[in-house]
Amino acid sequence: MSEGLGANAGLIGQAESRAALLTPALVLDLDALEANIAAMAAWADGHGLRLRPHGKSHKSPEIARRQAAAGAVGICCASLREAQVMAAARLPGILITTPLAPAKAPLVAALGREGADIACVVDHPDLAEAYLAAAEGAGTTLKLFVDLDPGVGRTGVLTAEAAIDLAGRIAAHPYGEYAGLQGYMGNLQHVDDLAERAEKLIQPTAGLRAVVAALGKANLPPAIVTGGGTGTHRLDAGHGTLGELQAGSYLFMDVQYLSVEQSADGGQPYRPALFVQASVVNVNHPRYAVTDAGLKSFATDGPAPLLAAGAPAGASYRYMGDEHGAVVFADPGDALELGAKVECVVPHCDPNVNLFDHYHVVQGDRLVDIWPVAARGNP
Amino acid sequence: MSEGLGANAGLIGQAESRAALLTPALVLDLDALEANIAAMAAWADGHGLRLRPHGKSHKSPEIARRQAAAGAVGICCASLREAQVMAAARLPGILITTPLAPAKAPLVAALGREGADIACVVDHPDLAEAYLAAAEGAGTTLKLFVDLDPGVGRTGVLTAEAAIDLAGRIAAHPYGEYAGLQGYMGNLQHVDDLAERAEKLIQPTAGLRAVVAALGKANLPPAIVTGGGTGTHRLDAGHGTLGELQAGSYLFMDVQYLSVEQSADGGQPYRPALFVQASVVNVNHPRYAVTDAGLKSFATDGPAPLLAAGAPAGASYRYMGDEHGAVVFADPGDALELGAKVECVVPHCDPNVNLFDHYHVVQGDRLVDIWPVAARGNP
Repeated sequence: MSEGLGANAGLIGQAESRAALLTPALVLDLDALEANIAAMAAWADGHGLRLRPHGKSHKSPEIARRQAAAGAVGICCASLREAQVMAAARLPGILITTPLAPAKAPLVAALGREGADIACVVDHPDLAEAYLAAAEGAGTTLKLFVDLDPGVGRTGVLTAEAAIDLAGRIAAHPYGEYAGLQGYMGNLQHVDDLAERAEKLIQPTAGLRAVVAALGKANLPPAIVTGGGTGTHRLDAGHGTLGELQAGSYLFMDVQYLSVEQSADGGQPYRPALFVQASVVNVNHPRYAVTDAGLKSFATDGPAPLLAAGAPAGASYRYMGDEHGAVVFADPGDALELGAKVECVVPHCDPNVNLFDHYHVVQGDRLVDIWPVAARGNP
Repeated sequence: MSEGLGANAGLIGQAESRAALLTPALVLDLDALEANIAAMAAWADGHGLRLRPHGKSHKSPEIARRQAAAGAVGICCASLREAQVMAAARLPGILITTPLAPAKAPLVAALGREGADIACVVDHPDLAEAYLAAAEGAGTTLKLFVDLDPGVGRTGVLTAEAAIDLAGRIAAHPYGEYAGLQGYMGNLQHVDDLAERAEKLIQPTAGLRAVVAALGKANLPPAIVTGGGTGTHRLDAGHGTLGELQAGSYLFMDVQYLSVEQSADGGQPYRPALFVQASVVNVNHPRYAVTDAGLKSFATDGPAPLLAAGAPAGASYRYMGDEHGAVVFADPGDALELGAKVECVVPHCDPNVNLFDHYHVVQGDRLVDIWPVAARGNP
């Protein structure tokens, strides 16, 4: 146990017990987490792939350190704030995977000047120039990847010509280091059916491969091609286009990812590790019990939370406003007592983690640690 | 300007300017906020109603103090955490408007013992007994309201008999103070059409009045009947059933409330005061620009964010994942520059505020303060 628990005694109930947590609480099953970290690390290693897992899923240096200890080459970040927190914790191989507003470039360069091992992505000449000027101003070299849009429609350049232009600018600049190419197919991670996902991956993968070839022809071959996620990583490995994987959600396996088929035989190499614990606060209705976890405790952009513990068989979870949820019974004879605890698998892990300040880390029924969600929030 | 700004210099960009904020930022228009506070205070005063505004909307002692200075009798809270923060800031008249898990009762009583002016609601004998036992254990009297469900189906007792039973238990206990009755019609606040809302309010108001009468007949007349919200407060005043109003969202006027008709002539007494500022981070697409504010910066349970500043006329906002949004142009000739700022009215203020750690308080184009969202998060 780290010192975290003693320092955070005010955050827990009367005892170091999973059953005594003040609710709503974000509960992290340490054994499941460690198993997921080990399973992905072994898989990447066995396929000769670098693993730079995405920290946007957990926002926690404690977890990033465990991933690094299992062989990860670094940690991806989705925001400047995440990168600042990971840099302060001296995590290696930080990669900010989204193009930032150019005004933030000096703050990134400042991290580099202070010794952080940091890389960014660029998808526009003005952003590249902003990063390079900031790096020069700070007197530090900055690693930059070219961000390619493989059909998501969000960030990235759309053509090989634009990629070559950016790679050339970076390589030619005294304070730039051309680090490689990013192509993240975020829109395909949650295609549930394996065969359909495989089919949809073919064209953007061919597009990515063509840009890699064009960069090579222009004497700018990318040293690393980075991308992929929990949904596509096994298929990506089959294509051999990516040298580095950015998967993140495998850590927690939210409701969304539990329905994403990972293998033809239905096998699932990762298991749920992240739950919201709620208390029953109203038992005055015959067909459902009301809990204290609603829109403020669950990410609402995905499916409903999935009841995992404490509820009668067949019950389902329904939102009842900012502060309340309902455990809806399948059998009219079912009931829950006032103050009873239920736990739900979170619907969508990244924004769900963002709602909480702490992980309550458990092993079985014991609370073993409390970890801050140190990089949550905006910006 | 308070000392907040200097202490939080790391949270802002290069200058004390609205244009220089790091994004995504939660921007609070101080003049609009003050006007909304004054308008509601004057209205309540003019109608002889106590105003105990709901702090779940803002989670900020800074704002609660301004409401108290304008005449509010106290501050409502939706959670133990909100109450703890308001108590630490010495706000008067704290009322936790939702029944808590009984295990939290000792923590509420501890606030009372430490001198907080705190009240709770109960809707079950076991919760009443938990509060009363905790109050006795702490040697402090606890004010308790009976919570009546006026048809929402969430919390509250369902019958006059249950209300009388609870009121009697509280009144008979040496450490209990029977403070009154709560009846909150949360399901009617967002009925947009004024006539329809008025119609729907009639039956639950009659039900609330009948319970008040039954309590009176049982020699347990409620000293205060509390409830109401931004959507129904003017209609509630017409009925005369409530003596105390709990409105909260009038402060900010989110997208949801902007469509709630307040008067037959279309007049709107409150105006938008709360915005999310985002930066354009990708301009590679012809019909839209991509920003850095997505699911992590907006409450997603309501309508889309409403573009209020910085975007071409007719543009709309669309989510593009956890970290990204899109400004979709109405005219194919429209464009935004990389790094340009846009601001959106927030869709649903309470959970939107909960996503941010700070308000960036502005007057016109100047950043004048930074206030922590001190009571955000769980539990």
